Parts: sequence; C-alpha cells; structure tokens
Amino acid sequence: MSETDRHERALKKLAEIDPDVAERLADSLRDIAPDLARHAIDFPFGDIFTRPGLDLKSREMINVAALTALGNATPQLKFHINGALNVGCSREQIVEIIIQMAVYAGFPAALNGMTAAKEVFAERDADNEPAD
Amino acid sequence: MSETDRHERALKKLAEIDPDVAERLADSLRDIAPDLARHAIDFPFGDIFTRPGLDLKSREMINVAALTALGNATPQLKFHINGALNVGCSREQIVEIIIQMAVYAGFPAALNGMTAAKEVFAERDADNEPAD
Amino acid sequence: MSETDRHERALKKLAEIDPDVAERLADSLRDIAPDLARHAIDFPFGDIFTRPGLDLKSREMINVAALTALGNATPQLKFHINGALNVGCSREQIVEIIIQMAVYAGFPAALNGMTAAKEVFAERDADNEPAD
Amino acid sequence: MSETDRHERALKKLAEIDPDVAERLADSLRDIAPDLARHAIDFPFGDIFTRPGLDLKSREMINVAALTALGNATPQLKFHINGALNVGCSREQIVEIIIQMAVYAGFPAALNGMTAAKEVFAERDADNEPAD
Amino acid sequence: MSETDRHERALKKLAEIDPDVAERLADSLRDIAPDLARHAIDFPFGDIFTRPGLDLKSREMINVAALTALGNATPQLKFHINGALNVGCSREQIVEIIIQMAVYAGFPAALNGMTAAKEVFAERDADNEPAD
Amino acid sequence: MSETDRHERALKKLAEIDPDVAERLADSLRDIAPDLARHAIDFPFGDIFTRPGLDLKSREMINVAALTALGNATPQLKFHINGALNVGCSREQIVEIIIQMAVYAGFPAALNGMTAAKEVFAERDADNEPAD
Repeated sequence: MSETDRHERALKKLAEIDPDVAERLADSLRDIAPDLARHAIDFPFGDIFTRPGLDLKSREMINVAALTALGNATPQLKFHINGALNVGCSREQIVEIIIQMAVYAGFPAALNGMTAAKEVFAERDADNEPAD
Repeated sequence: MSETDRHERALKKLAEIDPDVAERLADSLRDIAPDLARHAIDFPFGDIFTRPGLDLKSREMINVAALTALGNATPQLKFHINGALNVGCSREQIVEIIIQMAVYAGFPAALNGMTAAKEVFAERDADNEPAD
Repeated sequence: MSETDRHERALKKLAEIDPDVAERLADSLRDIAPDLARHAIDFPFGDIFTRPGLDLKSREMINVAALTALGNATPQLKFHINGALNVGCSREQIVEIIIQMAVYAGFPAALNGMTAAKEVFAERDADNEPAD
Repeated sequence: MSETDRHERALKKLAEIDPDVAERLADSLRDIAPDLARHAIDFPFGDIFTRPGLDLKSREMINVAALTALGNATPQLKFHINGALNVGCSREQIVEIIIQMAVYAGFPAALNGMTAAKEVFAERDADNEPAD
Repeated sequence: MSETDRHERALKKLAEIDPDVAERLADSLRDIAPDLARHAIDFPFGDIFTRPGLDLKSREMINVAALTALGNATPQLKFHINGALNVGCSREQIVEIIIQMAVYAGFPAALNGMTAAKEVFAERDADNEPAD
Repeated sequence: MSETDRHERALKKLAEIDPDVAERLADSLRDIAPDLARHAIDFPFGDIFTRPGLDLKSREMINVAALTALGNATPQLKFHINGALNVGCSREQIVEIIIQMAVYAGFPAALNGMTAAKEVFAERDADNEPAD
C-alpha cells in the first residue's frame, strides 16, 4: 500500500466518525504544522482504527474512557464523545462510561468528563439532533 | 437497600468477574486497612458495575483502556485484563484495545500495557486455559 | 445502615464543608447524569469523609495537596480550597500546602494551584469575608 | 544566608524526618550526580520544609497524599510514609490519608499506596518498632 | 555564595530568557504568595539553568518537550515556547519538538501543545517580530 | 512511498539509535501482538524521527526529558537514555537533562530518572564501554 492509499483509507474511516473533522484539523494547522494534521489522521485513522478485531463503536467507547481518565485533553474528549455518538453509541452509554471512570481515575476526572459530555450533547441539541 | 444488601450485590457482581478476588483483596488488606477492601468492593462493584446502561463486557473493555492509558497501575490493569477475558472478551480484543491506546497515551503506555497482557495470557495458559 | 441513611449522613458532612454545593452539583447534573451527583456525594462524603481517624480539616488539607499535584482538576481544587477555609484552615496554610507541592509535582503545578487559590480568595473577599 | 548555612539548615530539618537519608541519598548519587543529591536536599528541606505556616507533621501528611495520588513515585512515597511516622503521624492517620485518595485519584492509586504503607509498616516492625 | 547573590544570578539568567517575566511573576503573586515567586525564580534559574553541561537553548528545548508531554501546564508551556525562541530556537524546531511528543505522550498532547505554539507565534507576530 | 519503503526507512533510522532493538521488540511481541511491534517502529522511526528540522541527537534529548517527566515508562526511558548516548549525547548531558526535570515534574521524577540513568550507565560499563 502506498502513502496515498493509506491517507485515503484514513480519510474514509475518519469520515465515518465525523465528516468535517479532517478539513477542520487541516485548517487549524495549515499555517503552523500541516504535517501534524497529516500524521494525526494517517496513523490513528489509517493504521489503527482500520484494524480488524474491534468494531468502530467499541473503539470510540474505549477512547472516551481513556480521555476521561487522562483528564488533560478536553478538545479530544469532546471530539470522541461526538464520534462515539455518530457511530452508534447512545447518550446513556457515554454517561455510563464516564461514571465508570470515577472508580479508576477518581471523581474529578468523572465530573470534568461529564461537563464535556454535557457540552457536546447541548451542541448536538442546538443542531436539532433529537436526543436519544 | 441496606449496606449489607449492597455488599452482597457487590460480591455477586465481583464473582462474575473473578470468583477469588474478594477474598484475596480482604487477605492482603486484613492487617492494615480492612475497610479499604470493603470500600474497594462496595463502591465499584456494588454501586457502579451493577448499573444498567452498559454491559459487563463493555465495562471491562473500557477499564482495560483507561488503566493502559494511565500507565501507573499495573496490578489493577492485570486484574481487569483477566476480568475482561472472564466476561467474554477475546484475547484479540484485549490486544486491540491496548494498541489503540498508542494514539491517545503514546507508545510507551501501549507497550507496557501489552507486557501486562502477555503476563496475564501466560498465567492463564499455565493454568491450562485453552488460548482463544 | 440504609442507602437513605448513608445519603443523609453524606449531605450532613458535605454541609459542614459547603452548605450549597450538594444543590449546585445536583442542578448541574440533573439533565445528564443525576446518578453521578448522587454517587459523587454518597461515596466521598457518606463513606470516606465520615470515617474516624482523620479530622475534617486534615482531610481538606490533603485534598488541596493532591489536587494541586494532579494539576488537571481546577474546579475541584477550587472547591476544596474553599472547603478547607470553611473548616478551619487559614489562607496561609493553603498557600503553604500549594508551595510544598513544587517539590513533588514541579513548579507549574504549584503556580497553577496558586492561581486557583488567588481566584478563590478574591471570590471570598468579594463576598465580604474578612481576609485572615 | 550563605549556601553553606542553607545546606546546614536543610540537613538539620531532614534529620528530624529521617536521620540517615541524607547520607543514603549522597551515596546512591555519588558516582552519577552528586549535585542532584545536594539540590534534592537544599531546595526541599532548606527552603520549603523550613518555612513557617505549616508544621512538619502536616507537611508530611500532605506529601503522603500527593505522592499516593500521583502514583508513579513509590520510593519517595515510602520515604515520606516513614517520615510522617517519624514526626508524629500515627499509622491510622497514614491509612486514612491513603484511603481518602480513592476519591480524587481512583482506587488503583489508593490500593497501590496502601501496598507501599504495608511494606513500610512491616519494615518498621522488623526493626522492632512497637506498632502504634 | 549568599542568598542575594543566588537571586541576582537567577534574575540575570531569567533575563536572557524573558526580560519581563520576573516582574510579571512577582506582580501576580505579590498579594498571595510573594515567596513562591522568589522560589520559582531562585531554584530553577539560580540553581539549575545556570549549571554547566547543557546550553540554554537545549534546556529550553527539553522544557518545551516535557511540558507538552505532561499536558497540564499551558501557561508554563507558552512561557517556555517563548523562551526557547528568545534563546535561539527556530519556530520549525519548536514545531518538531511538539510533533515528536505524539510518540511518547499521544496525539492529544501534541495537538494541544501545537495550539499553545500557535498562540505564542501569533502573539509574537502581533508584536511585529518577523516570522523565521 | 510504499509501506515497505516506510518500514525500511524506519529500520534504518532505528539502527542508528540501537542496532538490536528492532529484533528484540519483534521477539518480545511475536506471540501476542506482532503488529504493535511494526507500528511502534514504523510510525515513530519511519514517520517522525526521519523528519528534517531537528537532528537525531536533539530528538533523543527531548525524549529523555519527556519520559523522565512522565515518570511511568521506565523501560522506554532506559532505551532512550541508551539511544541518546549512541547518537552523540554525553553522560553529562543526560544527567543535566534529568536534573532539569526536577523543576517541571518535581524531585521524585528527577530522582527516579537518575536511577534509570545509573542502571544504563552501569550496563554500558559492564559491556566495557569507556565512560565519557
């Protein structure tokens, strides 16, 4: 597989999660580090998310868990909460994942993760998505 | 519900994940902090794991992800890799969860998580569990 | 003890620290995860803060230390700086706790913790609490 | 104050916590980084621990909390559990501090901190210190 | 060397990195913790940055790396991105350091570090520094 | 560029840092996750380390800094201390990098990083490398 094929595969996978994000990421990094946008798409979405053995919904559920637990990457947590919802996760499942993190990373991580979820849900409601 | 009912519920849920762990935990903390053993069982397994909205296998998958990403809790990571396998996760799924963490927590977290998985798989093989 | 008794005990302990927070927490999570508000009150304040062996002021002092060192939970750090002051800690003690963290978590953690303390002190001054 | 006075002040304070540690630290770093031993004594124990506003026992209690929460510095956690006991903290208080961390840093941090405490208590018992 | 000499040495070194920061730091902490401002200058810039064995540019490069990887100290990361540029690092080198962190701390750390760099570069451009 | 070319490029770069590590990594992951060995080589060493804009020695210096600061990845820290020495870093520079981390990540991170360095230096001495 060529680098170009890998990039195409990454963009296709990423579009399943969020159709606009590749362009938003490229825009935000265009003037400073366009290569980081490329790497941040090609490795995660071209090499890892496309692997067999774990479905896309499960991948996004574990990402929401990990980013909630780490507690220092709010923009990425919000992106993956959105992504999880886009690939079939329910709002109730997102809420449960975040509550579960209280056990392993403490209550501050869970409470701050829930604040992120609340913002994502509100943004989706404002865009007229019916709540599930 | 009484505290006793909550404890019974916790022990029952914990036994689904690992039938021996409650006793091992109580033994290890008996002389120093028996109450921590009780809290470490009752809150996670009585209050959280028993919640509806997320099945037990999914809970254990996200725990493996979070503990791999945090990278500073090897005994607990090994416990939940074991637990995930006990409640229906395949070894391939464990491996995929850990690889996925390279994206969000870096390669050291993924490599050290895989070392933990390798040890758990070897212990299970030594106990004559057929590999899946 | 019943779940209701545990909740009452938690609310009573929490009111010693901050009389309004239980309601604020319930309000903020009402639409998304009311159970998390309940868990975030009952386990910490019903099960842990009510334990003998460590007085409430000492508990809040160690919480300010831990949250300063972790460095990724500003809302909770501000809550416990406030709580520590409410249960008898002086502003000077808060400042010393945060400075001490430079040794164990580095200067950024201490400086960002002090920024949080400065905001809490200013909010309390604006509410006309005489500075100690 | 001269650098020499600062070092003397640091050694005196450190001796209140553990009379042997300065020499052990110097020994362990002599061949690789003797200056780090000096810095690791002079700044924490000469500049910070000697500050007024917080007594030595409180300083060691918050250090045990922070190091338990951070979860990646076991040798230092064990040193400060020992130090806290040496300056007047009871074993029960150490245990309570570590249990409290379950709330802010999760159960793995508390369980691994308790393992460290158990080792320190056993070492002290082996040295015939009567348990308190 | 006296404490005063040490402070003078620290201020001189700090002025090489950013001529205004000592005053800004003192101003921001004057009412709450003037001693922390003093400690945050004297230990890092008086004791450590003045050590032989590593040039100032290399010191600032590794600081940008560490603060990007830790991911929970944005004000300090921005300060050291600025400082690295002031002591001879190019914008391209800053960008490369931050991209490299994706390997060891994950993509969120690298992306959030790049956001900080973008803000610093824009502030410098607004102050009419020609981009390199 | 094809995936095969990328892998070849990665192996060549990795051989500059440590000629044996690719085989050791493949061996250790062969039975559990051979793909992780491939990803852990191709992305870091094929995509990132080969980028222009930062020389190999600088890359290894910042990696030692970041892994010391993170404090939860000792095997990887030891690998990159070795790698830094292999690509032209002096032992004195390694020591300075680790001491510098006391400022940003606290003394425990620096002390534990120095323990890792001490082990690496001793292993190299045992292999008859003359100390520099």
